[in-house]
Amino acid sequence: MDITHYMQTLGRNARIASRAMAASSTAAKDQALRNIAALIRSKEADLLAANARDLAQAREEGLEPAMIDRLTLSAKTVEAMAAGLEQIASLPDPVGEITGLKRRPSGISVGKMRVPLGVIGIIYEARPNVTADAAGLCLKSGNAAILRGGREALHCNQAIAACVREGLVAAGLPEQAIQVVETTDRAAVGALITMPEFVDVIVPRGGKSLIARITEDARVPVIKHLDGNCHVYVDDSADPEKALRIADNAKTQRYGTCNTTETLLVAQSVAREFLPAIGRIYADKGVEMRGCEKSCAILAAAKIAVSAATTEDYATEFLAPIIAIRVVAGLDEAIAHIDEYSSRHTEAIITENHSRAMRFLREVDSSSVMINASTRFADGFEYGLGAEIGISTDKLHARGPVGLEGLTSEKWVVFGNGEVRS
Amino acid sequence: MDITHYMQTLGRNARIASRAMAASSTAAKDQALRNIAALIRSKEADLLAANARDLAQAREEGLEPAMIDRLTLSAKTVEAMAAGLEQIASLPDPVGEITGLKRRPSGISVGKMRVPLGVIGIIYEARPNVTADAAGLCLKSGNAAILRGGREALHCNQAIAACVREGLVAAGLPEQAIQVVETTDRAAVGALITMPEFVDVIVPRGGKSLIARITEDARVPVIKHLDGNCHVYVDDSADPEKALRIADNAKTQRYGTCNTTETLLVAQSVAREFLPAIGRIYADKGVEMRGCEKSCAILAAAKIAVSAATTEDYATEFLAPIIAIRVVAGLDEAIAHIDEYSSRHTEAIITENHSRAMRFLREVDSSSVMINASTRFADGFEYGLGAEIGISTDKLHARGPVGLEGLTSEKWVVFGNGEVRS
Repeated sequence: MDITHYMQTLGRNARIASRAMAASSTAAKDQALRNIAALIRSKEADLLAANARDLAQAREEGLEPAMIDRLTLSAKTVEAMAAGLEQIASLPDPVGEITGLKRRPSGISVGKMRVPLGVIGIIYEARPNVTADAAGLCLKSGNAAILRGGREALHCNQAIAACVREGLVAAGLPEQAIQVVETTDRAAVGALITMPEFVDVIVPRGGKSLIARITEDARVPVIKHLDGNCHVYVDDSADPEKALRIADNAKTQRYGTCNTTETLLVAQSVAREFLPAIGRIYADKGVEMRGCEKSCAILAAAKIAVSAATTEDYATEFLAPIIAIRVVAGLDEAIAHIDEYSSRHTEAIITENHSRAMRFLREVDSSSVMINASTRFADGFEYGLGAEIGISTDKLHARGPVGLEGLTSEKWVVFGNGEVRS
Repeated sequence: MDITHYMQTLGRNARIASRAMAASSTAAKDQALRNIAALIRSKEADLLAANARDLAQAREEGLEPAMIDRLTLSAKTVEAMAAGLEQIASLPDPVGEITGLKRRPSGISVGKMRVPLGVIGIIYEARPNVTADAAGLCLKSGNAAILRGGREALHCNQAIAACVREGLVAAGLPEQAIQVVETTDRAAVGALITMPEFVDVIVPRGGKSLIARITEDARVPVIKHLDGNCHVYVDDSADPEKALRIADNAKTQRYGTCNTTETLLVAQSVAREFLPAIGRIYADKGVEMRGCEKSCAILAAAKIAVSAATTEDYATEFLAPIIAIRVVAGLDEAIAHIDEYSSRHTEAIITENHSRAMRFLREVDSSSVMINASTRFADGFEYGLGAEIGISTDKLHARGPVGLEGLTSEKWVVFGNGEVRS
């Protein structure tokens, strides 16, 4: 099989389908989403059988348990896929919205119209639910998509793709609007990210090294999420009760998520009160603490186990029950620390002081900046996007949680009545 | 001189200065802009002397007249630079604006805050006015900038840079917020576009080959303008008088601009009436016509000189008194032609039919799409942006005319009162 030729065929198909998708009605797109949901429900047995084939193969290859877990479908996850598609159908259509229409002295009216990006390439790991989810988001936003999931999920992805195709066609939309790459050859990824003539943007979802490699090699823009080294800063004027609740939740509500806090910064003036209190909570939950000299002294004096943090610790996304702690002189030092170590994902300040809260909000250069709230809120659903294709740590185009709008662009529209330029 | 080391020093300086710029007040930025304008006015003699040195060198090297022309400063262009900076000072500050703040069921309020991009690298040709203009736009949008102008303008750019530095410092802003690359070594460009740790976005301004090369080699996002192969489509239901006025203006008002129309598409049903009329106007103005078989027949029958258009002609941005002409069956064929040949810059439909106008608006995938208006309006000033750093033919981030807002990004902001995620 000539992979380049195969991928270019998918690309050409997608480009053609993208025109029809851009012009398609909201009703047709929503109908397709509901069709696909119904098909996924009615073909549950087929999906589970395909998944069983993938799982048998994966076990034979000795795939690690966490990956097996993500690969596994159940009646519950099949229903969740279907419900997710119906939920996307219920969201407002971002395409076609015209905003900011203004009359100009020349007589023309100028505004912006929201339009699909065109063709979106999505590269992800062996998680079959992403296939349905990504297909739904691309479809609703009027784009065509080429989906390249982890090879371990191939049979299951093909079964889901069959539902997607059938649902599209039944709604009068092009079958090739959503295509699943049906080869496990890694060269397919290399081809997908280097055909700007057919693909407008790549959204990689997966581990940091995969994303870094794709970004390095891509000749197409990439909307990416690298890591989430998030911070909570407990200010001099923090309400102690809010500070405890948030520092606890931001670290311990879930350990493996990108919006989990990895470093706690505490203003010197409140460290002696605050650190033992939060330290006891962390210790009770089995969270390992790694502190600066001052925080180690305070925690040790309170008989709470702590070890010395290294510079490396401050730069690490632990994704585990470990937290780095540092006592800072105040807001300036907190911002400087974040500036040096943060991955620019999400940071929160806990304070009752309005001016310092607003300075933190303005000066911290991260995709989400919060006042008196847990970093765990950095999420498309919590923000009200209704859906999320990922969280971008880029600055251009889409920043932070990316929903349907992040899969669109705006073009200028001009309404005239025969005006010419003089 | 170690160019990489030199450029990294500029980069590090810019990164540090960008923090102060992001936090600076509107008043300080506007004061700096007015200071620089005043300095440029008061140092007119110095600027002209520096420009004279550049011009002497350029003539010696046999630079072509068009480039000498763009390199030349006069009392009038110096005043225009100063006035341009004052005009930028008078624009609203995009930074800090919070929009879309919404209360969520969890209790948090979520919105977006407009923030500077950080450090902007601008690469341009030997046009000294761009130095002042780009410095002003980056300054107002709260960014730091590294400016790399054509080597032929080095002395003049240094003289302008001295005014910029003095104006920044007098307003209490960091001197290194705007730095001009003071080496003519081409390796400086290569270094500038490959230091993502110091530069957030590159804006190249210049010829297509320069921009294509920069895009190919950059490891930093690029906001770029490739070419402007723009179209006017005269629909079956066009008002003949508007069609003539617009097709004339869009082609002949200026030949060398990117928003000039290069191909005229005419619906078959009106071609016999319309083509001879516009053909006479073009012929009178010395515009060479290259037509499809049908348009050649119609024009020749009206005794208007015309030659056969090649496929290559339809793909060409002439930037000259030449126009390609094609008779199409109607709207669908017009859209298909644009889809195939357009550079996705600007296209206009001339029609009185509402449904076809709206279909064109929605389905044509270009950065500006117009109804009954001249493509020449695609311009930041005409659109009311107040200033323009360029016109983007990209789809992500900034599309079409890019003003101050295109040099900013939005981050999410969350206002809480102790909320945690459950």
